[in-house]
Amino acid sequence: MVDIKGLTVKKNENFSEWFTEIVQKAELADLRFNVKGFLVFQPSSVLVMEKMYSLMEKNLQKKGHKPYWFPTVIPESNFKKEASHVKGFTPNVFWVTHGGDKELEERLALRPTSETAFYQMFALWIRSYKDLPFKTYQRAQVFRYETKATRPFLRSREFHWIETHCAFATQEDALKQVHEDMKTTKEVLHDNFGLPFLFFERPAWDVFPGASRTFAADVLNPDGKVIQQPSTHMIKQDFAKAFDIKYKDKDGIDKYVYTTCYGPSISRIFASVVIVHGDDKGLRFPWDIASHHVAIVPIGNDEKLITKARELEEKLSSFCDVVIDTSDKSPGEKFNLWELKGVPIRIDLGEKELDSKKLSLFRRDLNKRESVSEKDLIKHILNIKSEFTANLIKESDKVFTNKIVDSRTLDSMKKLIESGNIVRCGFCSVAFDGKKCAEVIGEKTGAEVRGTKLEKEIATGNCIVCSKPAKCVVYVAKSY
Amino acid sequence: MVDIKGLTVKKNENFSEWFTEIVQKAELADLRFNVKGFLVFQPSSVLVMEKMYSLMEKNLQKKGHKPYWFPTVIPESNFKKEASHVKGFTPNVFWVTHGGDKELEERLALRPTSETAFYQMFALWIRSYKDLPFKTYQRAQVFRYETKATRPFLRSREFHWIETHCAFATQEDALKQVHEDMKTTKEVLHDNFGLPFLFFERPAWDVFPGASRTFAADVLNPDGKVIQQPSTHMIKQDFAKAFDIKYKDKDGIDKYVYTTCYGPSISRIFASVVIVHGDDKGLRFPWDIASHHVAIVPIGNDEKLITKARELEEKLSSFCDVVIDTSDKSPGEKFNLWELKGVPIRIDLGEKELDSKKLSLFRRDLNKRESVSEKDLIKHILNIKSEFTANLIKESDKVFTNKIVDSRTLDSMKKLIESGNIVRCGFCSVAFDGKKCAEVIGEKTGAEVRGTKLEKEIATGNCIVCSKPAKCVVYVAKSY
Repeated sequence: MVDIKGLTVKKNENFSEWFTEIVQKAELADLRFNVKGFLVFQPSSVLVMEKMYSLMEKNLQKKGHKPYWFPTVIPESNFKKEASHVKGFTPNVFWVTHGGDKELEERLALRPTSETAFYQMFALWIRSYKDLPFKTYQRAQVFRYETKATRPFLRSREFHWIETHCAFATQEDALKQVHEDMKTTKEVLHDNFGLPFLFFERPAWDVFPGASRTFAADVLNPDGKVIQQPSTHMIKQDFAKAFDIKYKDKDGIDKYVYTTCYGPSISRIFASVVIVHGDDKGLRFPWDIASHHVAIVPIGNDEKLITKARELEEKLSSFCDVVIDTSDKSPGEKFNLWELKGVPIRIDLGEKELDSKKLSLFRRDLNKRESVSEKDLIKHILNIKSEFTANLIKESDKVFTNKIVDSRTLDSMKKLIESGNIVRCGFCSVAFDGKKCAEVIGEKTGAEVRGTKLEKEIATGNCIVCSKPAKCVVYVAKSY
Repeated sequence: MVDIKGLTVKKNENFSEWFTEIVQKAELADLRFNVKGFLVFQPSSVLVMEKMYSLMEKNLQKKGHKPYWFPTVIPESNFKKEASHVKGFTPNVFWVTHGGDKELEERLALRPTSETAFYQMFALWIRSYKDLPFKTYQRAQVFRYETKATRPFLRSREFHWIETHCAFATQEDALKQVHEDMKTTKEVLHDNFGLPFLFFERPAWDVFPGASRTFAADVLNPDGKVIQQPSTHMIKQDFAKAFDIKYKDKDGIDKYVYTTCYGPSISRIFASVVIVHGDDKGLRFPWDIASHHVAIVPIGNDEKLITKARELEEKLSSFCDVVIDTSDKSPGEKFNLWELKGVPIRIDLGEKELDSKKLSLFRRDLNKRESVSEKDLIKHILNIKSEFTANLIKESDKVFTNKIVDSRTLDSMKKLIESGNIVRCGFCSVAFDGKKCAEVIGEKTGAEVRGTKLEKEIATGNCIVCSKPAKCVVYVAKSY
């Protein structure tokens, strides 16, 4: 059912249409389900996202997070316990009001995020300083009644994520967790998925409802807009007080815990993987998350070709997933299909290859054809395997790094933003007293102050807007 | 937080309390979440259920099922397309009616099952006989507003399952799928999870709303009640017609497809794993689904013991998951804990073991202590690994087989049912004309006619109720 003609739009010419086309043609999601903003995720995305879940979960478990499955619904009363949280989320909550014919005694929220579910259990589970740190996570879907326009994978009304919820004895421990979350983001999003990002502390005017400080990774799209990927929050202690989460310290004194949460959305990160690595031929996936690694395309129906294909599959199956294309499409259509689908290696198998015992490979990291004698095949593919993800990372890092540029005036910033860059500049303050200058940037350039890096950068010179001495270095970009 | 005193109730004396106690003490689920019938699944169950999902999904993928993620919500209008389905499910549907402050244009069901979601997409995806068979599945939570009493894992208002949905050109192909589903049940539930079961075709009066024929596996609890595990259905073609799922056959003629579905509920199957393998010490898990395989318990805090424990962990970690208990509990409490938690092997490590270089192992398959010299440890544990699940299966098969007994009179049936058996007998008919006799059985014994086996059994003699010549062999048992 795939349109084997491949993509008709170039990524760098019209990114938005390219993305729409690749979602449809590579069969990542079907948008025709009859509830607005909800997707049907198809095998080509689900198989990859399952691997992404697995890598992220293993990483979190290694860092001591324990897995839970909480109910999908949260009573309205839980929601109302913390004022800024309820204010931030209520406009976007889907409400369950009836069971069968009966009106429920209390409305239930389809969870938009689960602080108010985890925290009431934390209050039951945490007793003593010995229980801390208490580090959890769950794999779950969350639901947001979005009033903005939805876009497949990037902003849907139901999305697939992981949320970690942790409790600590001190604020310092909570801040350490933020740094650990940043490390997790680096290890998984960058090193496993090949996504370059900047990890910011958001300005004071841009924190999560209920948080005291918010941190987040921004990934860049080719249209010059950044997209927020995992964010991590230091939650206001108001929350621990509202839910009465206390522990006894070493001296037997009751104290409230400090909490953090971290929310990598797998379906949204998948979008970044598609966008960052995809090219004009279609998808490309880092080796460890590709659903298949090698596609063998027999050119013709000769039984000998199929036999050879099965023989190669057998040889390779101990270290990679192989698919053999025995469909009745033309060779050209098959080539297009597997390039579109993002399989790292294609082996084209015709009479010529059979006779010469030399195989023809096409590798998607370098988009290069290679010839290899049959007896060296395993070694060759193991070699490609070892460098495939590194090649994608090298390419994406280079694109990203080149897009981060310094500016000292609003005029040059405007031009740089228009040509799709992330702009670094001196700025007066990311506390509330800097909000006005950020608004000026917004008016002049259409871009936002995304925040400051966690690794301290020393500001020299003046604020790009108000010319007061710069207290910090901020990054400015357009966003979704 | 675990009560390390272990279980206080014996499984065969008071099964119901034993189950309640093990759910709580082994920290499988917390029932204190403030929405009736919804659980918080804890790490001790989630880690196991994740492995169960993985084994079931791999098996389904090998058989050609492709994974999808459908929306959690289904519009009310989809639901109303097929009359018997809407009648069967509507009393148990949770309804989403509002997004933020706004009333939605159409009510959305929290899916109780997803035929009405998949089928509308099948109508878009299936075009030709070449697209058939079309075999899908999804991992998902489903929601049922139960009016019966809920029980953790066994009957909850939200549960975690897999549902397969398939379309075929002919009814014969659909029936073949039922047999394949039975094989999957055998391979996963029995061979991987160690659960003995009988696979029945249900009587005509006991089919799924919207199905023409229903099949299901029954697993036996120690109280003599069976619990329905995966059921599989041949769906009425009314459904394909209602959703207009047609394909062009080889002659270009439009035909309606035949559909099947299969619904293994992982959270419910987990309950059977707990119930069937658990004993008076606590949980036992087949090797492949145990969250940890070896618990090392240093007896004392001597640094040398911890060093040795780490050394053993290092040695074993290539083929099993090891946990070292460095808590400040007493040795006895630690022993109880790891037996309760169902870790297959415990290694007790004291000064004596350190000096003699002989280790003391406790294995949960045989509940037996074994002594092994340190240099043979790996070999010994590999050996336990190879026979562990088989030992559990042998034990559970034996219990199960002994509980299946023949009867020729209602009086003897009554006694056999009361002493916790599944009764096999001749029966007049599992078509609707047999319903009255089934009702007589229900009145006399409190048990149900569960159905006939798929493998043909030859009936001799007469119906146990009406004395007409028996047309089939049925199995009778109490159920939940």
